[in-house]
Amino acid sequence: MIDPARPLALVAGAGHLPELVAASLDRARRPFRVLAVRGFTERAMRRRADAVVDLLDIPGTLRILKEWAPAAVVPAGGVTRPSPAALLNAAHAVRNRDILKSLAGGDDRLLRAVLSLLEENGHRVLGVHEVAPDLLGRLGRLGRVEPDSDATLSIASGRAMLGALGPFDVGQAAVVAGERVIAVEGPEGTDRMLARARALNRKPFGRGTPAKGTVLVKLPKLGQDLRIDLPAIGPRTVRRAAEAGCAGIAIGAGHTLVIDREATVAAADAAGLFLIGVEVAP
Amino acid sequence: MIDPARPLALVAGAGHLPELVAASLDRARRPFRVLAVRGFTERAMRRRADAVVDLLDIPGTLRILKEWAPAAVVPAGGVTRPSPAALLNAAHAVRNRDILKSLAGGDDRLLRAVLSLLEENGHRVLGVHEVAPDLLGRLGRLGRVEPDSDATLSIASGRAMLGALGPFDVGQAAVVAGERVIAVEGPEGTDRMLARARALNRKPFGRGTPAKGTVLVKLPKLGQDLRIDLPAIGPRTVRRAAEAGCAGIAIGAGHTLVIDREATVAAADAAGLFLIGVEVAP
Repeated sequence: MIDPARPLALVAGAGHLPELVAASLDRARRPFRVLAVRGFTERAMRRRADAVVDLLDIPGTLRILKEWAPAAVVPAGGVTRPSPAALLNAAHAVRNRDILKSLAGGDDRLLRAVLSLLEENGHRVLGVHEVAPDLLGRLGRLGRVEPDSDATLSIASGRAMLGALGPFDVGQAAVVAGERVIAVEGPEGTDRMLARARALNRKPFGRGTPAKGTVLVKLPKLGQDLRIDLPAIGPRTVRRAAEAGCAGIAIGAGHTLVIDREATVAAADAAGLFLIGVEVAP
Repeated sequence: MIDPARPLALVAGAGHLPELVAASLDRARRPFRVLAVRGFTERAMRRRADAVVDLLDIPGTLRILKEWAPAAVVPAGGVTRPSPAALLNAAHAVRNRDILKSLAGGDDRLLRAVLSLLEENGHRVLGVHEVAPDLLGRLGRLGRVEPDSDATLSIASGRAMLGALGPFDVGQAAVVAGERVIAVEGPEGTDRMLARARALNRKPFGRGTPAKGTVLVKLPKLGQDLRIDLPAIGPRTVRRAAEAGCAGIAIGAGHTLVIDREATVAAADAAGLFLIGVEVAP
């Protein structure tokens, strides 16, 4: 167990997530320090930053964390797909061509490498799901709408298919209508997959109306390191799913971040979509 | 066995395929009659038509085929995604709402239903792959380029992944780079999947150059009725695959139509892409 009195080190990447984690830690009265990453951390968190590092300034980061000696390091928010400026800065900070290449590739090998490095230096690395579990979707219905029998079948076949894809390095979400798979997520991400599903509905002789019981199923992969890659949904996911003709969204309970839960649930209720947490291991 | 002296009935749907099949039958000196489908059969085949039917005029079609008593009926070319006019005509011809619905849905349930009906009426139905096997890709290399070791790994992982997807109603192709799956084909079809893979390469911080050994793997599903849904590639597929950064294309040998083989192979050679037929059951 980690010492709850010792501060955590929240490494704040891009997006809204670091703020949500900070708020969750505040609610839990967990002390923490904020390490901002230049070019990634949003303004709200930059204001709370106790220190700022350059992306990939590994020596500088290790120095600060050694001084802080946090109970655990908590990375939150993206640091992939950096701006050209950030990439150039990083190129000055590190000589490691492999790390730079994976950074440029936008995949998560970089984060994996950094996490290993932190652990090699004696730090414990915890995921958002471990320090702020209140941000995750729980088992069962989250909003007012219940899935009907068509949707329930879609959820089951979507879970089975994503399970079969488990051994392969492919997306963690699909749009499913009954036993028919409308789209499997690749590196393009959930939003673009939903845009594709939407386009398929609109075809001159697509169904016009989408197939009954169309569902977005979003689950982590087996063995996925949630500290690096935590599946997430938010109000935008709900809007896109509604536009794609989905009757609802099924997420892996305890394994999926629900960004801005109130707004997400309100959006689902307003659009008549169900939102349900399902068990991750079928 | 069917009697090679008795004419076949070639039911000519949309596209270039009926012409290719006719040419193959001509080369093999197999006699055949052509049944055109109003609004679908292209001009070249309409000229050769021995009779014309309205889409979904099942009684009329059965009457003609009874008269012809062909050795087998060979459907070739699409009849899904009809024009609004064709759909209206069809609505007059049939009262079967389920068939009309599946027609409007653009899926192959209609063809399945029609094939069953033909078989119930004593007709044998053969696929293009059975009467014109020279149109299919054979095992092994089709062009001049050989897959390298990266591409060979991609082919293996693509085959394994499509195999795992076998039980699910999802596309029959994928773009794979080593063990990473770039895109899985859904109802959008191979061309659009390739466009997606291309877009992923172009991202500001996509690799810029595509991942080494990126391959389009296109295989029939286990148990797929090739009479209804024969995977196909052509010169356009090669162009799109090249644009998507593919090093080559792997197809199921004996299970994939190579439309306009000479042009397809020439396009692959010109673009430096390999084209290889692999065994369908791994």
